[in-house]
Amino acid sequence: MKAIRFEGRRILPVDIPVPDVKPGEALVRVSMAGICGTDIAIFNGYTHFEGVPGHEFAGVVEKCPDRPELIGKKVVADINIGCGACSDERHCPKRRVLGIRGHNGAFAEYLAVPAINLHPVPERLETRHAVFTELLAAALEISQQIHIHYHDRIAVLGDGPLGILVAAGLRQYSGGVVIAGRHPEKLAIAEKQGVKTFLLKKNTTPEDLLSQLGRFDITVDATGSPQGINWCIPLTRPEGTVAVKTTTSEKSGIDLSAVVVNELNLMGSRCGDMALALDFLETQRVHVEPLIEAVYPFVEFEAAFSHAMKKGSRKVLLAMPG
Amino acid sequence: MKAIRFEGRRILPVDIPVPDVKPGEALVRVSMAGICGTDIAIFNGYTHFEGVPGHEFAGVVEKCPDRPELIGKKVVADINIGCGACSDERHCPKRRVLGIRGHNGAFAEYLAVPAINLHPVPERLETRHAVFTELLAAALEISQQIHIHYHDRIAVLGDGPLGILVAAGLRQYSGGVVIAGRHPEKLAIAEKQGVKTFLLKKNTTPEDLLSQLGRFDITVDATGSPQGINWCIPLTRPEGTVAVKTTTSEKSGIDLSAVVVNELNLMGSRCGDMALALDFLETQRVHVEPLIEAVYPFVEFEAAFSHAMKKGSRKVLLAMPG
Repeated sequence: MKAIRFEGRRILPVDIPVPDVKPGEALVRVSMAGICGTDIAIFNGYTHFEGVPGHEFAGVVEKCPDRPELIGKKVVADINIGCGACSDERHCPKRRVLGIRGHNGAFAEYLAVPAINLHPVPERLETRHAVFTELLAAALEISQQIHIHYHDRIAVLGDGPLGILVAAGLRQYSGGVVIAGRHPEKLAIAEKQGVKTFLLKKNTTPEDLLSQLGRFDITVDATGSPQGINWCIPLTRPEGTVAVKTTTSEKSGIDLSAVVVNELNLMGSRCGDMALALDFLETQRVHVEPLIEAVYPFVEFEAAFSHAMKKGSRKVLLAMPG
Repeated sequence: MKAIRFEGRRILPVDIPVPDVKPGEALVRVSMAGICGTDIAIFNGYTHFEGVPGHEFAGVVEKCPDRPELIGKKVVADINIGCGACSDERHCPKRRVLGIRGHNGAFAEYLAVPAINLHPVPERLETRHAVFTELLAAALEISQQIHIHYHDRIAVLGDGPLGILVAAGLRQYSGGVVIAGRHPEKLAIAEKQGVKTFLLKKNTTPEDLLSQLGRFDITVDATGSPQGINWCIPLTRPEGTVAVKTTTSEKSGIDLSAVVVNELNLMGSRCGDMALALDFLETQRVHVEPLIEAVYPFVEFEAAFSHAMKKGSRKVLLAMPG
């Protein structure tokens, strides 16, 4: 089958066998996959994964001995694969992660996934929207980690697809969500979903943000930059929470004294609940169509990656040949 | 009256007027004061406070129009002085802090303190022990921020007075507290209070600690070093909490990806509840006598500061002339 591989800092087209289906696994024919900031971070050295990347996808089940009722069904999948002995796949120290760690991902015609990881996609949900399930689950994870109140003031920093989904998703819990970013056309996507917006200009400083917006109960670093956290810390009220979504290969230089003196919570936040995200998508509580920058046929993966790496681009999707 | 002043990086003996007692304030004659890591950090540039330092103290009330029943009583005091309009003195953005920010502290014969900040010291509590109230309150603050369960595994990094009080204090809530530090004689103080100990040698790495102790539900950075946090992060289980007590003038270089992927909570933790700490001291739930390194008469403040700045020293106290 056709696939692409990360090797060091190269992206290579390869022709490899369709994966074996091991006990407990299903074989999924990939319909569409999304290029994520994490894929680009891996490519830039965030982890040393070598193999088939891709963890945002939707596909159709071809083999599934353990859950035969899923055969022929459109699915998405949890990306974490635990050791099987522990109950916490997301944090199992021996876990594999689709397209990220120890397990080939979705930039291929087929991938093998544990049957228990699969979630059937509701009929009415288009494949190009179902691809966003994993990203939306990660965005909504914040709502499952801390209790968000209607009157909480929330600032989301970063207007990439993740930032927009965090803002639009948390808007379902709080009336006071603001997103700050550098791209008016992307902020407009969030604005249409009830989120207030703040355009960061080249010379905007964290102090400007503070003086114009005041402090927030919750701030979210969805910038993808190691400096994002240092914008969030001064913007968070004493005893408030900074939800950290950014993963980079670089360390962040942080003034911990401000965290201690203001007794802030810096809360790491990663993957979320796929069922919750599918429910949001099916009931259209968030809109992902405006997040699609472009859909490339799989053979044009190089152009797709170049496009995804451009500053300010939204979500680039790969349509598989199947 | 005699006092000492921080000016830039100098400690100066001064003779200044006894402070005026403004409306709402009390005049307290200082009996004894402790030199804290924060005092040394301020001296080293953590903040640019110029004035009389000192925030750990016990004294006797001489004037107190608002609470005349306290006159002649031994007291300790909350160090945060709010604007008066808000309800959160500890985090009021306009707050003054005794000996730290905008208000002269306790390294003097007298200081002025708002009457509402005063806490009478129980009769049976010695002055040399009451001086520890503020530090113990800060140590116990963690127990008021998060729910500590008896079976929680807790690691405290740093065996200075704060680390020992955190470990001994949290031991009252959890059976599984370990303190790691570089000083066998200081670890022994914690051990006598039911805390397990781990001696860090020169070449001990965070990985050694992890392989020998395993992961903890809660870790506490009481190292006073900007690198302490990077010992705590790998030692904390997924979705666990790192309580950060360290305040320094230097930034900390942190691998936020580990925080995100493991969904850790980095929780800043500062001042605490003086009444709770007095209760702990009165009922002898923690023992502070072994934490006293030396008591200097006030006139020997230079020797006292030199002693307190020595690596590995415990708490150095200043006995006032009064």
